Amino acid sequence: MFIEIQRKSGLSLTKQIYQGVLDHIRSEFLEENVKLPSVRELSKQLEVSLITVVKAYQRLEQEGFVTSVQGKGTFVRRTALEGRIETKESNPFDWQLSVQDYLQRSQFARFHQVPEKIHLSSSMIDPGLLPNRYLEQELRRMLIENPKVLSQYGEIQGDELLREAMVGYLEKIDIPTSSDQILVTSGSQQGIDLIARTFVGPGDVIIMEAPTYPGAIDAFRGRGAIVLTVPVDNEGMRVDLLHDLCDKYKPKLIYTVPTFQNPTGTVMPIKRRRQVLELAKSMHCLIVEDDPCSEIYFEKKPPASLKSLDQDGHVIYLKGLSKILAPGCRIGVLTASGSIFKRLVAAKANADLGSPLLTQRAITPFITSKRMMEHLKKLRTALKVRRDLALGILSKYAPEEVYWFVPKGGLNLWITFPDWFDTEYLMLEAKKQHITFLPGSACYPSEQENHHFRISYSYVNEQQLEQGIKIICDILQKAKKQKTVKENSPQF
Amino acid sequence: MFIEIQRKSGLSLTKQIYQGVLDHIRSEFLEENVKLPSVRELSKQLEVSLITVVKAYQRLEQEGFVTSVQGKGTFVRRTALEGRIETKESNPFDWQLSVQDYLQRSQFARFHQVPEKIHLSSSMIDPGLLPNRYLEQELRRMLIENPKVLSQYGEIQGDELLREAMVGYLEKIDIPTSSDQILVTSGSQQGIDLIARTFVGPGDVIIMEAPTYPGAIDAFRGRGAIVLTVPVDNEGMRVDLLHDLCDKYKPKLIYTVPTFQNPTGTVMPIKRRRQVLELAKSMHCLIVEDDPCSEIYFEKKPPASLKSLDQDGHVIYLKGLSKILAPGCRIGVLTASGSIFKRLVAAKANADLGSPLLTQRAITPFITSKRMMEHLKKLRTALKVRRDLALGILSKYAPEEVYWFVPKGGLNLWITFPDWFDTEYLMLEAKKQHITFLPGSACYPSEQENHHFRISYSYVNEQQLEQGIKIICDILQKAKKQKTVKENSPQF
Repeated sequence: MFIEIQRKSGLSLTKQIYQGVLDHIRSEFLEENVKLPSVRELSKQLEVSLITVVKAYQRLEQEGFVTSVQGKGTFVRRTALEGRIETKESNPFDWQLSVQDYLQRSQFARFHQVPEKIHLSSSMIDPGLLPNRYLEQELRRMLIENPKVLSQYGEIQGDELLREAMVGYLEKIDIPTSSDQILVTSGSQQGIDLIARTFVGPGDVIIMEAPTYPGAIDAFRGRGAIVLTVPVDNEGMRVDLLHDLCDKYKPKLIYTVPTFQNPTGTVMPIKRRRQVLELAKSMHCLIVEDDPCSEIYFEKKPPASLKSLDQDGHVIYLKGLSKILAPGCRIGVLTASGSIFKRLVAAKANADLGSPLLTQRAITPFITSKRMMEHLKKLRTALKVRRDLALGILSKYAPEEVYWFVPKGGLNLWITFPDWFDTEYLMLEAKKQHITFLPGSACYPSEQENHHFRISYSYVNEQQLEQGIKIICDILQKAKKQKTVKENSPQF
Repeated sequence: MFIEIQRKSGLSLTKQIYQGVLDHIRSEFLEENVKLPSVRELSKQLEVSLITVVKAYQRLEQEGFVTSVQGKGTFVRRTALEGRIETKESNPFDWQLSVQDYLQRSQFARFHQVPEKIHLSSSMIDPGLLPNRYLEQELRRMLIENPKVLSQYGEIQGDELLREAMVGYLEKIDIPTSSDQILVTSGSQQGIDLIARTFVGPGDVIIMEAPTYPGAIDAFRGRGAIVLTVPVDNEGMRVDLLHDLCDKYKPKLIYTVPTFQNPTGTVMPIKRRRQVLELAKSMHCLIVEDDPCSEIYFEKKPPASLKSLDQDGHVIYLKGLSKILAPGCRIGVLTASGSIFKRLVAAKANADLGSPLLTQRAITPFITSKRMMEHLKKLRTALKVRRDLALGILSKYAPEEVYWFVPKGGLNLWITFPDWFDTEYLMLEAKKQHITFLPGSACYPSEQENHHFRISYSYVNEQQLEQGIKIICDILQKAKKQKTVKENSPQF
């Protein structure tokens, strides 16, 4: 019995299992009298606790959908359902529930647009800090010179002009490549997806950091991969543990964000980078180096990229331009060498026949101009101010037991609170006050940790940032007080 | 042993099998002395003729990579390889050959940009017939009014303004829908791909027309589906045969281009449409209705779409806007109802987090303006002239044994020549004269037919169209003469 568990959906696991079994009964996957898996089996299969499954089965039994027979097991009772179907309004789309799909939905849950006031969940950059005016002017000029850009398909691999421009840009950030090794993608999310669909299939072993970028979790999980995780410490991925995992399981692919890791903000030092590369080399394993914002450093430049250290085509490097330049264009690039690269271009053909020419040409002039590097400098300055503001407020208002990592760049702050604190409570209270943040649980590919959350200091303006973090600290303080009151009250 | 056969790659099947086995030996999937599958087994598995496999094995044996032992089988000889590897230059990327992938490449082969003079292979519309100037002006105006469009992410489901505009447009072409049932995609290729990744998995049975659109073949094959085919006659899909197939195999999904079918140009009459829908209803099966150009009719309006006849959410309808409006924007939409729709939106999140806002906003004003319908009218007139021109030249110059279907709309002509004619010869000769067309074999999901080809009269100008078809007829005439000479010459 296949039940999809969406750990980040906001629905309790019990509810999801209850609903999953019920869907199977409704859609006639489970016929009358069929025996359900034992509580132990299902808990193992779904990687949830015994009690979660027990609760789901109890509810199903209370509602008459299953009968539990002591010592024998739990059996489907479709009769209860049939009664219901007769009484309820018939919906012509009900048959659709019987169409099984192959979808991961966790990512999606994060993207329901809600009319919140302060988006600390958005790991994006304040549009006010992006060069809209210049881009818009360049684009208008380009349209006058070449209106046919609207009526032409681009190359599948990406427009030659943009690929050339990106070679120049990547050289400036020390990534050596050539235009025939660059594939233009619809943001780096598509880059990750193309890699997943090309190289990852059921049973393939891949390794991710824990915590990591939720969008990547979905892309790899969606291909049926076995996802193993390596914890992150203050210096990124724990390479000592990676070693052990690789020895045991010979992974096909390692996904990492070595610079300003998402969500923790940590940076992998050069020594670890070399070790990861050595490992990949000895394992004939691919490395996906996702680099959303190594340009946004607040102190010194981060160490050399894995890509620049790679001699044998192990690294597939992803650079998104949505965040740092033009979200409205959704452009990213991927660079790799050898047959690995060629296969990714073929995947792009299957996915969408190539990114739109318009969005590619829209950003090309800016990338080749001197303004690009000036823009990045400006971003570093402005975002350092916001990071410092966020850290200052946290230091002043957060309860003692709350910790955070001080990021030396990037867009995010990773905050850890004590085990006793209830994340659900924090989310609900924050929602009441129209504040969003990313619950840490969304960032774990397998075993979740619930006492973290990520806030981004890059999207909202300074006033909102200050207000938002103050409110979160306030909620944490209140929770702490309640706990203290509880602990000090007499026990019965 | 998994060998990927690309029937449309231009490489002979024998060469592909030879190469596939050799890759497995090189990448150490096949170790010394391992027994290869028997000729019969492999021919069955790959759906190729016995003689094709025999030839591949013979070549491998001649080159020393395998040894065939009478009555025992064929065995790997890695020694031959090792000798070779020592002598050849070592390439640091060689290890990449050991990374297996999950790719379909047939589509890709069609898209290598070649500097040909007359593209009769491009099923696109002459940029000179598209409203570049108006689009460009509207886009410039929009950029002045709202430069922030470049710095904003759009909604995953697509920009509300474009979705509203598309509701109005689809209503005009008799597709009733609402903006919350519209998903914006990067061209309809992405629409097909999203459907495939969401609902199609290994072993699922899907049904396609034969011949059909090659891009769809790759998307479904790439998911490991069992693809069954229904032949097309002058009225589109043979629904009588579809019935039999459905009874036997209960498909999960049927992919069809009912109006101006690609590549044949046929139109499915209303009666068949109702039958297909009834079948889907009784089978709880999805229908993908791909509608690239029902607007381009030359006589009367085509019959009602499957989508408009559907009451229960069986049809997922795809409308591409790249071809008829703005290839440089790569925008398409998908519309469906019920949970099927919601799941496709989730797939879009995983694929790329949403299409770029810029390209969506670029075409929105035009779609809502009166110009849209005028533009379509103009297209119908201009393309009818080109179709008639193409038909006239064919009638005048093609050999007697060559047949074609007269399309009442769309962009393509499907041409059939006698069995004795060699397609490879036609392709080579046409290439010499810098003319491209689509070989019919690319359009068959399983058993190929080699005596067809598709030319598009929509992309090249009238002069090129005339010249191109004349040259093709000339090649066909010459081949016919040679055959006649051969047949009439004395046999020894």
